[in-house]
Amino acid sequence: MTYSVAIAGASGYAGGEVLRLLAGHPELEVRTVTAHSNAGQRLIDVQPHLRSYGDLVLQDTTAEILSGHDVVFLALPHGSSGALAAQLSADTLVIDCGADHRLEDKEDWDAFYGGEFNSAWTYGIPELPLSTGSQREFLAGTKRIAAPGCNASAISLAIAPGVQADLIDAVDIVSVLSVGPSGAGKSLKVDLLASEIMGSASAYAVGGVHRHTPEIAQNLRKAGAAEVSVSMTPVLVPMSRGILATTTARIKPGVTLEKLHAAWSAAYANEPFVQVLPLGQFPRTADTVGANTCLIGLALDENAGRVVVISALDNLTKGTAGAAIQSANIALGIPETTGLTTNGVAP
Amino acid sequence: MTYSVAIAGASGYAGGEVLRLLAGHPELEVRTVTAHSNAGQRLIDVQPHLRSYGDLVLQDTTAEILSGHDVVFLALPHGSSGALAAQLSADTLVIDCGADHRLEDKEDWDAFYGGEFNSAWTYGIPELPLSTGSQREFLAGTKRIAAPGCNASAISLAIAPGVQADLIDAVDIVSVLSVGPSGAGKSLKVDLLASEIMGSASAYAVGGVHRHTPEIAQNLRKAGAAEVSVSMTPVLVPMSRGILATTTARIKPGVTLEKLHAAWSAAYANEPFVQVLPLGQFPRTADTVGANTCLIGLALDENAGRVVVISALDNLTKGTAGAAIQSANIALGIPETTGLTTNGVAP
Amino acid sequence: MTYSVAIAGASGYAGGEVLRLLAGHPELEVRTVTAHSNAGQRLIDVQPHLRSYGDLVLQDTTAEILSGHDVVFLALPHGSSGALAAQLSADTLVIDCGADHRLEDKEDWDAFYGGEFNSAWTYGIPELPLSTGSQREFLAGTKRIAAPGCNASAISLAIAPGVQADLIDAVDIVSVLSVGPSGAGKSLKVDLLASEIMGSASAYAVGGVHRHTPEIAQNLRKAGAAEVSVSMTPVLVPMSRGILATTTARIKPGVTLEKLHAAWSAAYANEPFVQVLPLGQFPRTADTVGANTCLIGLALDENAGRVVVISALDNLTKGTAGAAIQSANIALGIPETTGLTTNGVAP
Amino acid sequence: MTYSVAIAGASGYAGGEVLRLLAGHPELEVRTVTAHSNAGQRLIDVQPHLRSYGDLVLQDTTAEILSGHDVVFLALPHGSSGALAAQLSADTLVIDCGADHRLEDKEDWDAFYGGEFNSAWTYGIPELPLSTGSQREFLAGTKRIAAPGCNASAISLAIAPGVQADLIDAVDIVSVLSVGPSGAGKSLKVDLLASEIMGSASAYAVGGVHRHTPEIAQNLRKAGAAEVSVSMTPVLVPMSRGILATTTARIKPGVTLEKLHAAWSAAYANEPFVQVLPLGQFPRTADTVGANTCLIGLALDENAGRVVVISALDNLTKGTAGAAIQSANIALGIPETTGLTTNGVAP
Repeated sequence: MTYSVAIAGASGYAGGEVLRLLAGHPELEVRTVTAHSNAGQRLIDVQPHLRSYGDLVLQDTTAEILSGHDVVFLALPHGSSGALAAQLSADTLVIDCGADHRLEDKEDWDAFYGGEFNSAWTYGIPELPLSTGSQREFLAGTKRIAAPGCNASAISLAIAPGVQADLIDAVDIVSVLSVGPSGAGKSLKVDLLASEIMGSASAYAVGGVHRHTPEIAQNLRKAGAAEVSVSMTPVLVPMSRGILATTTARIKPGVTLEKLHAAWSAAYANEPFVQVLPLGQFPRTADTVGANTCLIGLALDENAGRVVVISALDNLTKGTAGAAIQSANIALGIPETTGLTTNGVAP
Repeated sequence: MTYSVAIAGASGYAGGEVLRLLAGHPELEVRTVTAHSNAGQRLIDVQPHLRSYGDLVLQDTTAEILSGHDVVFLALPHGSSGALAAQLSADTLVIDCGADHRLEDKEDWDAFYGGEFNSAWTYGIPELPLSTGSQREFLAGTKRIAAPGCNASAISLAIAPGVQADLIDAVDIVSVLSVGPSGAGKSLKVDLLASEIMGSASAYAVGGVHRHTPEIAQNLRKAGAAEVSVSMTPVLVPMSRGILATTTARIKPGVTLEKLHAAWSAAYANEPFVQVLPLGQFPRTADTVGANTCLIGLALDENAGRVVVISALDNLTKGTAGAAIQSANIALGIPETTGLTTNGVAP
Repeated sequence: MTYSVAIAGASGYAGGEVLRLLAGHPELEVRTVTAHSNAGQRLIDVQPHLRSYGDLVLQDTTAEILSGHDVVFLALPHGSSGALAAQLSADTLVIDCGADHRLEDKEDWDAFYGGEFNSAWTYGIPELPLSTGSQREFLAGTKRIAAPGCNASAISLAIAPGVQADLIDAVDIVSVLSVGPSGAGKSLKVDLLASEIMGSASAYAVGGVHRHTPEIAQNLRKAGAAEVSVSMTPVLVPMSRGILATTTARIKPGVTLEKLHAAWSAAYANEPFVQVLPLGQFPRTADTVGANTCLIGLALDENAGRVVVISALDNLTKGTAGAAIQSANIALGIPETTGLTTNGVAP
Repeated sequence: MTYSVAIAGASGYAGGEVLRLLAGHPELEVRTVTAHSNAGQRLIDVQPHLRSYGDLVLQDTTAEILSGHDVVFLALPHGSSGALAAQLSADTLVIDCGADHRLEDKEDWDAFYGGEFNSAWTYGIPELPLSTGSQREFLAGTKRIAAPGCNASAISLAIAPGVQADLIDAVDIVSVLSVGPSGAGKSLKVDLLASEIMGSASAYAVGGVHRHTPEIAQNLRKAGAAEVSVSMTPVLVPMSRGILATTTARIKPGVTLEKLHAAWSAAYANEPFVQVLPLGQFPRTADTVGANTCLIGLALDENAGRVVVISALDNLTKGTAGAAIQSANIALGIPETTGLTTNGVAP
């Protein structure tokens, strides 16, 4: 069966990645692409890497133009999708790649985002370790999906197995991420110019103010944590794509490296897209470029009493567009891996 | 007055940076450069950026050739400088850019390095906050200096003010560093090939095994810590030079951001080369390239109860060669900033 | 129908790219992978981006192990494939990704490569403009394919349409290429270290000595040139993958930009993988990363009397592994685009 | 003696590099810095690598504020300096880092720039090979200097010796340059975002339309050429700074590599900042970063009948700010190398 698809925000990085992946998806057929300032142009002239889309033209981003498709992907700036989504049919599968429908708690939204609060949609990390049940059960048949934050995915997938298995403290987790600038989109800011970023590393959102912080806490509570605190600092480094999260947590008494590795391995034992590496191996972001894969390696720092978990993923693929398509596959009852690959483009 | 200088290991990155800086130093005059496999070649053919050295030829690295200079810089692989240094006159100022003379505790050496233990030399971070006195007092007039580890400098300078002022716990410090590959030298390893590193981030020495860990602990004990634990993870990112350390520590009860910023600012109030940024500003490594500067910004993550300190420096300059020359200036009684700059090469 | 496949040299960059692409190829099934020093290891431990290959183990590169497959890809250093290929059955489709079977003229081989000369195999650029006929006719049903040189592909595809249409001089062609280091393989040389390449551009094989020079001349003669001279200079730049060739040739009297664009467009009118951009557009290598696409833009420098052609491709994909698979598809009678994509991974 | 200095456009990349270099210049003392949108801010907050400037505040860019200094550097967008410079005293030494006063021929200006034509000032490449005399003679005592275009410098210095010595044709010169994006300034354009540039190479100003083209022709005519044509194509590559120009020209009959190398070596025999490498060596841009050095290597492509000249320089230093200061030194009668270095910051 073939489903008709519209993508709003097709001129951005996230929308472009949805389109790149859907070009190889046998059951989701892109019919409509929309944009704001680029409306009226050929998609291929704005996204010249998407050669297969030929003469498809970008239309305006309106509910009218998006309506009438089986599936709608929203890849819009935060705060833009709530009002638009409210106008789409309840029968349409809508996947929001933005933040508007991720948080369940209005206080979190107010503290980290602000503006109108929209109710949470089904969360799009199928592999998220939960204290009971499976995230896939929630995704099956849903009509509204909130694709996860890219940094939130990298940290949540890295550390939730330890929470689920009660091997670590969920308080005083510390995570520092090396991230590429594509996560910031095509915003015209001096800080995102190539001359500023090449040859340099710089931190941002320092001091607990990154917007993905409450999303991570929400995920870890679902994994079984009573109380959570995560100190998270992203560091912008000179690579277009990729997140490498270094996440550490205090281990509980008596926990050994073997127990840790066994728990992590069990949590993702049957997952195609989340893979725990053998002890002694740690992932590189290059190995996940363009793939829907999150790779995880872990070690025990005995002196510090902390597990150190390294997780790597492509912020645009597993971090955004791949997770969106994977979740949509589940919602539609299509095999979950359809249109996605585990193999990265390296070197 | 002019001092004659020899540099051993002049064909490597650290030795090259010593030479680049000494080219602008009015009182230290390079007479002799040595190497191993490159001996017999012109320096300029191995280090083509060092144009000012004209036809100077690399000689063999022997005690005989190094002898007879006022100052000798050793920029050799770890484990190579101990035996060589033992053959140099006690009247010669010797600065070791390697690790051989940094650690005071043989157990630390055995646990993290191995091989023959050499006694510690005067440690070359003049600005290191101490519980009493000043590191400059130890450096004045000394004839043996151990230049610090680059990552150890970035973390120690970042967090020692909080230890010194008793505002933070010295246990459960967590630091993650974004580092460029020049710190690994010119080693011919697949992992250091450009194709492997460009477009990728990867962690190494994960799990508390990085060799700079005991050096940091040693520094923090000198700053006043009774007990220390540091979980340190370096992440290799695609930039030639630079270290951006994100170091977090639990604050003590009642500590505010203002108190923290005041303590850090006081610790480096008169330092030309260690600068604490105004609140809300955080450093970029690009701003320190080629400079002897360490820039520090800090924030308080109130939810996590941790101070987050971002420190940036150039691993080859303030992290190695600049610290070596700064320390040598002090030892010789030359004004400390001679031959060094605070201004980075950006963009 | 499914064909069994073996890949020799599976631990290198070219072999890795063949494997990455074949993972998505429905009719070519990888059974055997071989290597030299890495034999005995899991493929995934040497090529950690190739997650889909699970526990497949690298075997020794011998004719015995490679025998018995329908298709064999050789991704070996130059000079290594001739003797090995001679031992493989004439019924096996063998594709050589190295240079050993590209040149038809022994003098060219002796001048640019040296060592034993091997007879030329069917050349693997299906789209190559010829003075008569089509390269696809030669590829259909062949059992021996020489995949082209990556730089030779970028220049030949860029300029052959002008030769074929008799609009330019084939003498005094000048081409300068920006190339990433992955084309040089995993060789352990100081010049290929990340610290040496990041933040720098450098030329190599300057002065007409690059080995792809006679291959380009051979291609242009097939396109109709009586006499050919190409001055070619590759410049190594800090990106893992990609070739951007800037190729200029003197135009013949009376030739206009419109005529040029029409001829180039006609030459590739029905090609899925070679696309001529609208006038005023020029390609970026990022748009071809991981894709089997060569993008071409052209302009007329009226003052200089030269057409300026910009061509972009991924040296590992369209430049090597993609061309190899595309050619193998034709040889086997499989639809030519099977297992290949036109869409690049950008940003 | 100390000269007072003002810099207009101090918040940009060129102005920043003038400031970085002047920080180490013993006779030029920066008193005033100006900007447009950044006026009122501390210089150090806009240019955080310029630590030595402490609390110096950016003022508005007006003739009134710039007046009363001995030396004024203008680092403004093209078209902005003409009117401003006209209001400055004829006794003030004014160095324009922009294009407004480079071209002597109004037709060239109209064809490549447009807007009001300003008369040419003394051209700021002291080493430019001329058919008679020396560019230094013109610079000595002048009060108006036009700093050269960075690409024009790289190509002119590369090829003028061959024109001067009558060894090459000045028609049908072809040059392709690998350039970093800092030459484009801090313009907020999508094409200059880090995500667009990292991992990619792309050409611009293709087809003979780059604005430095007439400046190069003007330089080569001064070197003795009767007729000139240069096909020039810049390629943007992922490095912040640097230009590597590959320039080829047809040799005249009977010219050998030895003759070429001898002529080039003679042209720059006594130059501190332009160095011709031994035969077989070619420069890398990294070796010139932050230095006022232009490195040149050359080879003869006998088959193509072309000399191939590789020249490397830092677009912000020798390409702009370094050339400006070097020329100002000459104009003021200060030793020419004051405040400048030949040593690059590598790796």
